[in-house]
Amino acid sequence: MSVSFPTSDLTAALRITEGPVDLSAIETDVAPGFDGDKEDGKAALFAMGAELADLQERLFAQGVAGGTRNILLVLQGMDTSGKGGTLRSTVGLVDPQGVRITSFKAPTEEERAHDFLWRITRALPPVGVIGVFDRSHYEDVLIARVRELAPAEEIERRYEAITAWEADLAARGTTIIKCMLHISAEEQKERLLARLEKPEKHWKYNVGDLEERKLWPAYQEAYEIAIGRTATEAAPWHVIPADRKWYRNLAIGSLLHEALVAMDLTWPKADFDVEEQKRLLAEEKPPV
Amino acid sequence: MSVSFPTSDLTAALRITEGPVDLSAIETDVAPGFDGDKEDGKAALFAMGAELADLQERLFAQGVAGGTRNILLVLQGMDTSGKGGTLRSTVGLVDPQGVRITSFKAPTEEERAHDFLWRITRALPPVGVIGVFDRSHYEDVLIARVRELAPAEEIERRYEAITAWEADLAARGTTIIKCMLHISAEEQKERLLARLEKPEKHWKYNVGDLEERKLWPAYQEAYEIAIGRTATEAAPWHVIPADRKWYRNLAIGSLLHEALVAMDLTWPKADFDVEEQKRLLAEEKPPV
Repeated sequence: MSVSFPTSDLTAALRITEGPVDLSAIETDVAPGFDGDKEDGKAALFAMGAELADLQERLFAQGVAGGTRNILLVLQGMDTSGKGGTLRSTVGLVDPQGVRITSFKAPTEEERAHDFLWRITRALPPVGVIGVFDRSHYEDVLIARVRELAPAEEIERRYEAITAWEADLAARGTTIIKCMLHISAEEQKERLLARLEKPEKHWKYNVGDLEERKLWPAYQEAYEIAIGRTATEAAPWHVIPADRKWYRNLAIGSLLHEALVAMDLTWPKADFDVEEQKRLLAEEKPPV
Repeated sequence: MSVSFPTSDLTAALRITEGPVDLSAIETDVAPGFDGDKEDGKAALFAMGAELADLQERLFAQGVAGGTRNILLVLQGMDTSGKGGTLRSTVGLVDPQGVRITSFKAPTEEERAHDFLWRITRALPPVGVIGVFDRSHYEDVLIARVRELAPAEEIERRYEAITAWEADLAARGTTIIKCMLHISAEEQKERLLARLEKPEKHWKYNVGDLEERKLWPAYQEAYEIAIGRTATEAAPWHVIPADRKWYRNLAIGSLLHEALVAMDLTWPKADFDVEEQKRLLAEEKPPV
């Protein structure tokens, strides 16, 4: 195959715009919508890089020139599913000035004193910028549900609140791309063991990871409910088979590319007289 | 020459730890401390990339593990001097998760209601992170002085305030790297004309740029005073000849590399029993 990069076949294969969702029916070590192997996938992402960077700069330029649009990429997934690797390999392809990454940890005391969407709203990207959430408001219906960090009726309320909040965000010009990096429990085990084997990876390991892992089925169920309840046309989910890192990276790159292309981004027109400025600059006395 | 990258010769040639400073005596189209041409310079920066990324990950890992150190890279320079290009070409070499870029614009009403260091302090990077300021608190003694945005005695106070604030920051674990991207007025003219020639660059052009340009000598004087008054061992300045973009990028990369190497960054030791975790993981019942 050629190294031209895929878009619509791949992204269409991943998109979910309504529930219900059965994660057990979605394989984790496959490459839907892409008719190539690992080398092809890496070549396709590489081929996409220059165009992604160009499109991102156009989005940024429009932001400077008074545009209203931006992108919010939401990354969710179990530990070791590759949220960080995706950021390095895919988001790293564009100008870092045009990207704002927020990693959400357990909420602080101040954050807990507000509604769960308060800290999320504060982290939204400005116009022209690609915002990336490494974990997100979905933790408030995932770990919050599994660990019973909030009453059941509050969790219930949150699905509705999220859907309304995202619909409003989309209506105001944000393209929302929600992704679950979908790995198998077996793949997670291998990745955790790999972290233990390498001293330079020990800092990524937490003893709490094993406790969380015991709750794997409860987390899968929480993801199914969250995705099913919040997948909409305005803010679709994408369940990305993520056992293969190259496919995961290609998928995220393709989703960003598709979103940028759909914006039909032209360079902003000059709001000044270009010829006059050229003349003034040519005629000026040397300033030094 | 080989593609091994330079550090100490180049960075030593740029470092300023005390005033006074005469900018007119520092050429803008030279490559101090580097004994190669453009191709050599690009190769050297490329060769540095993997090591920069490795060192940055160690810094980040130490931050996660309770470290206290980080880096603050301050970029100053006249319009078109290449602050943005530096970010793309050099800061883009490391994991975007470990970088926090802040572009300072004219202060908002809320910011103006506070001391000038208020918004700067809020933008400081957390431990383990490389913070980059695209413009900075130095605008409060540069444009503020040239445009008389504050009384002379307030500007005078700010040099002292900056020096004390930076010394405290350095004492608490931040390596401060202050850079002035030093271009000639002639080079700026060419770059402004180039922006006018290309429709895809018009968004970067402001008609106010020509007005600022008329104040070139006043800005150079303001830079000389600011650098001279705030260059210290704890927070040195680097005047980087920036007419040659490849040298500018190599210089910033070398300064970051030198700062990271000086931290002697080891991977954090595991704070848990690695063998026990391996055993628990091997013995666990499948979670699904």
